Amino acid sequence: MNAHALPRPEPTTIAAVKDKLAARLGARVTVSQTILEQHSHGEGLPAVGIPDLVVFPETNEEVAFVLALCNDHGVPVTPFGAGSSLEGQLAALAGGVSLDTSRFDKILEVSPESLDCRVQAGVTREALNAHIRDTGLFFPVDPGANASIGGMASTRASGTNAVRYGTMRENILGLTVVTPDGRIVRTGSRARKSSAGLDLTHLYIGSEGTLGVITEVQLKLYGMPEAIVAAVCQFTSLEGAVNAVVTALQSNLKLARIELLDEVQMRAAINYSKLDYVESPTLFLEFQGSLNGVREDVEMMQAITGEHGGGEFLFAERPEDRNRLWKARHNSYQAVMALSPGKSNMGTDACVPISALPGCLLETKADIVASGLTAPIVGHVGDGNFHLGILFDPNDAAETERAEALAFRTARRAIATGGTCSGEHGVGLHKIVHMKTEHGEGVALMKDIKNALDPNGIMNPGKMYPFGGNCRS
Amino acid sequence: MNAHALPRPEPTTIAAVKDKLAARLGARVTVSQTILEQHSHGEGLPAVGIPDLVVFPETNEEVAFVLALCNDHGVPVTPFGAGSSLEGQLAALAGGVSLDTSRFDKILEVSPESLDCRVQAGVTREALNAHIRDTGLFFPVDPGANASIGGMASTRASGTNAVRYGTMRENILGLTVVTPDGRIVRTGSRARKSSAGLDLTHLYIGSEGTLGVITEVQLKLYGMPEAIVAAVCQFTSLEGAVNAVVTALQSNLKLARIELLDEVQMRAAINYSKLDYVESPTLFLEFQGSLNGVREDVEMMQAITGEHGGGEFLFAERPEDRNRLWKARHNSYQAVMALSPGKSNMGTDACVPISALPGCLLETKADIVASGLTAPIVGHVGDGNFHLGILFDPNDAAETERAEALAFRTARRAIATGGTCSGEHGVGLHKIVHMKTEHGEGVALMKDIKNALDPNGIMNPGKMYPFGGNCRS
Repeated sequence: MNAHALPRPEPTTIAAVKDKLAARLGARVTVSQTILEQHSHGEGLPAVGIPDLVVFPETNEEVAFVLALCNDHGVPVTPFGAGSSLEGQLAALAGGVSLDTSRFDKILEVSPESLDCRVQAGVTREALNAHIRDTGLFFPVDPGANASIGGMASTRASGTNAVRYGTMRENILGLTVVTPDGRIVRTGSRARKSSAGLDLTHLYIGSEGTLGVITEVQLKLYGMPEAIVAAVCQFTSLEGAVNAVVTALQSNLKLARIELLDEVQMRAAINYSKLDYVESPTLFLEFQGSLNGVREDVEMMQAITGEHGGGEFLFAERPEDRNRLWKARHNSYQAVMALSPGKSNMGTDACVPISALPGCLLETKADIVASGLTAPIVGHVGDGNFHLGILFDPNDAAETERAEALAFRTARRAIATGGTCSGEHGVGLHKIVHMKTEHGEGVALMKDIKNALDPNGIMNPGKMYPFGGNCRS
Repeated sequence: MNAHALPRPEPTTIAAVKDKLAARLGARVTVSQTILEQHSHGEGLPAVGIPDLVVFPETNEEVAFVLALCNDHGVPVTPFGAGSSLEGQLAALAGGVSLDTSRFDKILEVSPESLDCRVQAGVTREALNAHIRDTGLFFPVDPGANASIGGMASTRASGTNAVRYGTMRENILGLTVVTPDGRIVRTGSRARKSSAGLDLTHLYIGSEGTLGVITEVQLKLYGMPEAIVAAVCQFTSLEGAVNAVVTALQSNLKLARIELLDEVQMRAAINYSKLDYVESPTLFLEFQGSLNGVREDVEMMQAITGEHGGGEFLFAERPEDRNRLWKARHNSYQAVMALSPGKSNMGTDACVPISALPGCLLETKADIVASGLTAPIVGHVGDGNFHLGILFDPNDAAETERAEALAFRTARRAIATGGTCSGEHGVGLHKIVHMKTEHGEGVALMKDIKNALDPNGIMNPGKMYPFGGNCRS
């Protein structure tokens, strides 16, 4: 899938840039073919763009040096975190430099008193949570993959417990970003709120490496709740499961996680993770709070699910039991891949207003059935967000086309309800086709901002903005 | 205080623009001296800039017409909501058009199912809450003043219960904005989260009318909690009161409001609102949740305040009692003004990380005492945000200078802790002097964005950006 490849820099330009980079970074500039290939793609669909060089900077100043040099020579730069993005964000479509942040692995400061921390962008969420475990605090945003915090900021990631704690958007207080011309800028502050000037922090969150490189992130932390209880509730119908979720949200019930798996996803999960459930639509739930609060919430949710055809709750209270349960949920991608070995998985990321969720989800389910394709549904339904994993044989042109059409209709159905084509994965390469439909004239404003902050168009070209190679139309 | 007046458009330009506006808007263009003066300032310090014209558009298309016309003629436009901003945002420093949004007073849609609504920008928060009362929902952001929702979006306002519900930043899903060249752009969506493209919504939130005009706002709504209990707790020392707050925040205790009034502010409130309290540092608290949850939270907070020298809780549970209590808190500005008739009130808006709050607050208190000025302290301390109301005689140059110096030091002290000069009032005119110190190189990025989205510099000139008349340096 190299249809999106763009013109690449001249070999002489790359050679000149390589020499200058090597003079400063030494062996932390590489042209090793293995490493170039590693840095040519993320997960998800195989959008590939081989960079000419991979660099491993270790300081803000080194990132500034790399960017200013590339900016001077018109060499594209594609930031690379843990490699787990799903929408083609990491493919170096125009070659140039892949800037790997994995050496930005330091936790710079943890303040239990202020419930915040500052980390370098390459720190992964699991590394952060392991580091702070003894403080009684945790960082809640959990997209499943052990992504880097910088990558999660860049894609405005979320995951299973956004319904309670919000997404990266709500959990970042400030950033350090390096601009394409090599300025090191600290955005935001450590204050919990601020009205002092344009919100640069939120402009960079979700900008997918198209405006500069995020090198440090100031994050909110949370105290571990007194009680955590996970539960699984199986339903006789998808409609019952989704209506139970909507009722819970409208009842002011505070759930920490509300995950919906349809019967196809359950079949995959049962086979892959050896689970003792039946193949029917299922809610995975988590309750957090005081002991009494959790008890009240569980009772209220049991009443709601009972009204909608939900069965008995199967509880998991001990950490190891909860972890096993959520691991099964987090492994849904691998479980789906194991359903049909050899097939590819085309992910969708629709997110809709809560009132539109039942209609949108059931219409989409009917559409899947009509398409004849296998496409399990798994959703962070507390946010109105659900994913299809559409299985298709990339060597079968007709099946690929049917899969693409189903994904396209799913995104457009979400947009038509007032929702979005992407709840948490970002635009990357694969969702560009929806930007005009979703944002209309807003796309022109995004382009104006992109051109103002990256006038040479070196940052992650070919992504997010529907304008071809760079952002100049 | 007209030191900041900027060059104004030529009278012939204004005359030409006025004719064209009148041809479309009729009597909704005015040069009435009374109305011009009404639109020359907000509240707070008397920064005055008389506009040449005031317009009252009623539709997005009319706003687009006004802006495009002014953009073509290089005529400044200053958006005007309910007139309650505190930092000089509303002064038409370069004359031109004051664009009054008061006729944008329609609530366009309320969806109890999705817990959201869409309102025109001129709707006030009280009007919105009155309108939706029967649905069992409410909009929580409460800056005290009956501000317009558009104005609150423009200044990234918050208020007493941001500690529980967040600020405007966390409660806006999308906007309609009109660009300086007259394009009508819908940002965001109705989805609770989105990763689809640059976050235009958050770029416009807090942009103080410098990038365009916000005409519609999509807001989150919340279900009324089962139980609400307000309580007052008086302390023997300011230190005890603030340390109790910090302990509560670090204990995972969910409070809906935590307001601190020092003994000077209490004296003002007691006199003004005829309250039966003693003149000592006091916390005004509100607990929300289930009946049991509130009971648990109250007991925990009583234990914490007791450890820090707090007295018995005085409860207010009936709505009328709670309203009287919060009215006394909300009237703190008027109460302060009544302390010393004839004096002006210079407000500060420091917001700091929670761990820095006790030190910053106590140093500031000592600074007030040393200054010899009267400056009551009132704070949304759950967010680390506190205000001084520095009383001074504007006709006394020496006292004015002392007041300005105290306000300056207070802002810089907050910035030095990693905080901000403005937690919720915005930059306007009075906080520009702190922008470089707080944001460093970030100011240059803000300017790049301003120039990209308002290339002729017509939107609210002289505000927010430290670059003089317009944003071209």
